[in-house]
Amino acid sequence: MLIVQKYGGSSVATLELMEAIANRITKTKETGAKLVVVLSAQGDTTNKLMGLANSANPTGSKRERDMLLSIGEQQSIALMALILQRMGHGAKSLTGRQAGIFTTSRHGDARIKQIKTERIAKELDEGNIVLVAGFQGESEFGDITTLGRGGSDTTAVALAAALNADKCEIYTDVAGVYSADPRIVADAVKLPEISYNEMVELSSMGAKVLEKRSVGLAKKYGVPLWVLSSHGDEEGTVIKEECSVEGIFVSGVVANKNIARISVSGIKDQPGVWFKIFNTMNQSDIAIDFVYQTKHAGGTKDISFIVDINRLDDAKKAIEANAHKITHAAITHDTDMAKVSAVSTGMATNPGVPSLMFEALFDAGINIDSVSTSEIRVSVLINKEHADRAAQVIHKKFQDEKYIRG
Amino acid sequence: MLIVQKYGGSSVATLELMEAIANRITKTKETGAKLVVVLSAQGDTTNKLMGLANSANPTGSKRERDMLLSIGEQQSIALMALILQRMGHGAKSLTGRQAGIFTTSRHGDARIKQIKTERIAKELDEGNIVLVAGFQGESEFGDITTLGRGGSDTTAVALAAALNADKCEIYTDVAGVYSADPRIVADAVKLPEISYNEMVELSSMGAKVLEKRSVGLAKKYGVPLWVLSSHGDEEGTVIKEECSVEGIFVSGVVANKNIARISVSGIKDQPGVWFKIFNTMNQSDIAIDFVYQTKHAGGTKDISFIVDINRLDDAKKAIEANAHKITHAAITHDTDMAKVSAVSTGMATNPGVPSLMFEALFDAGINIDSVSTSEIRVSVLINKEHADRAAQVIHKKFQDEKYIRG
Repeated sequence: MLIVQKYGGSSVATLELMEAIANRITKTKETGAKLVVVLSAQGDTTNKLMGLANSANPTGSKRERDMLLSIGEQQSIALMALILQRMGHGAKSLTGRQAGIFTTSRHGDARIKQIKTERIAKELDEGNIVLVAGFQGESEFGDITTLGRGGSDTTAVALAAALNADKCEIYTDVAGVYSADPRIVADAVKLPEISYNEMVELSSMGAKVLEKRSVGLAKKYGVPLWVLSSHGDEEGTVIKEECSVEGIFVSGVVANKNIARISVSGIKDQPGVWFKIFNTMNQSDIAIDFVYQTKHAGGTKDISFIVDINRLDDAKKAIEANAHKITHAAITHDTDMAKVSAVSTGMATNPGVPSLMFEALFDAGINIDSVSTSEIRVSVLINKEHADRAAQVIHKKFQDEKYIRG
Repeated sequence: MLIVQKYGGSSVATLELMEAIANRITKTKETGAKLVVVLSAQGDTTNKLMGLANSANPTGSKRERDMLLSIGEQQSIALMALILQRMGHGAKSLTGRQAGIFTTSRHGDARIKQIKTERIAKELDEGNIVLVAGFQGESEFGDITTLGRGGSDTTAVALAAALNADKCEIYTDVAGVYSADPRIVADAVKLPEISYNEMVELSSMGAKVLEKRSVGLAKKYGVPLWVLSSHGDEEGTVIKEECSVEGIFVSGVVANKNIARISVSGIKDQPGVWFKIFNTMNQSDIAIDFVYQTKHAGGTKDISFIVDINRLDDAKKAIEANAHKITHAAITHDTDMAKVSAVSTGMATNPGVPSLMFEALFDAGINIDSVSTSEIRVSVLINKEHADRAAQVIHKKFQDEKYIRG
């Protein structure tokens, strides 16, 4: 049995918390399993280091920022190795590079290209618990890179895939994947299982439990992925290819308030404008959603779309920088919107999910600005102030209709 | 012109101090020189990390301690690169490994085996200021090592040697090498120059300005070594092979209170006992000094010697562990002693230096416990409470006799 575990920053924020995690690691090790543990930086270390970097130079090279940020995880793994050694276990910490994680040289948002597992395999064979620094790797130039958002989850899943691990366990502050955010929807239930595809959609729609990228990677390599609480001993949620329960079930309802709508207005209606806007966003690696256009009598049109609120400035800058390609009159934006989504694999063959969702919103008197769907997801754009209530009434409607498992 | 500079931890303790150092680096860079800058960890970072390591595990593996300690220098170089970039300079930070520094695998006290300069040379050719993390390298197993005490000085000198630099500048809190510690001896003068050999003796005797190891390395490779203030613009001290001034000059008077005397008593007087004690100390890498023996009527003898007070426990443990080889009755120690030394290359041919030293101590009524000499150094062991006064009266005597330059 080979298990890859990942613990996030809040689970290792202090030596006392690390001690508790070390006990958990030890328990797994004592079952006889080979164990690779990926750690994030302690608590708010990464934010503090970012603050330092910004104080030194708000626009410095990303290479140097990666050099700085990567020390947080290095601290975590070294301390955990020392704690495990004190508990009588062989333990070795490995930086991203030492763990054989080689990436593109896109600093701050690098992609894993290859994992050379020799060193990890050697340490496991010698009976060591292997602690790997999450979120980091090495570029072809021998430079330290970081993997961007959710990077430690990605490290864990990629290692599980490369090592052909029996499972990859992601330990978090919550006990698993819920049918909605329990802080907003009191009746939300923990799902025993969910498919990769549903989880990708939930993550894309703003569920914070897992970053979409790590789920996509798990799907690609068929890594059985568990989401578990780092505190209790509850069963978590397993994310896998196909789920055993048949029927129309909704995996989750997600309200995402961290969005902004950008409108590019007064565009001359000529071929290629769509392409140019999408291409501009794509080159800046900005995901867009809810795209629609409004045509005006004078031959011009407006194009609107949704971006993550954290990318609003980047998106506006990217469009301005390409203004010569996209003749337009004005760029405006709006941060008063929220996106509420429901994800269900059953949706493809059954229109029940969207119609129940619209009904719940209608009953609650919440106006829908626009709708966007995929094969397994329906999303509505509404006013931000109604977001939580929308999630509540939609979730309740699904529960009343037995569309939520458990 | 290729210059290697090194700045210590107190010079880079805060972003404000780093800014001042960055201005100094920039000034050198603007003379057209190629510039490699070695940095220590900020302020008391290394001590804090050691404290963390000890909290996690006071007896954990040195490999993991090195993994933890090495992040301090990585933080310094990344921040300095960001600051220099903000000032409009190309700057790249390199970890020990990236700088091509390969060491033995003796964690915590590794020795540099080889420096592969390709990466540094490439960055210099591209016009970058290269910032190298001091105190660290990589072992043949791909693990991060640290170089032990004075490690960043050693990094700087070793890089200067490998790069065939025109000079190696060590920036410190003091303006150069003084004829005595100015905090104790008010009349101490800054030396314009000093030979490698004298500096090695001064460092060995307890002068803190440079670690003996880095001076020895500079001597081995003929690296012109400067000690300068990181604050002012004063001329510093150059350390080189031969000094231009002829005559009997004393380079320095050093009082070292950080020593302990160990006595192994009741040893059976049989062949090999000396060898066994020295060999035991040598294998534990503990330098010893002031060795002497006392023979007793019953055929036993006592052997006493001096060690650094920080190595006292290690030394006692090492002897205990080898007790079966060294039949003895008791180990005792004494921490009330101090060693006061005078270093002078002229001493070899002129006995004036020791006799002036003894005279000064006699005049001051300070009793000498024992004496030890080398070709260019004389040391006395005295009671610790008289150490500062001894340094003062000896230095004054040399000054009165014009044995101190300047």
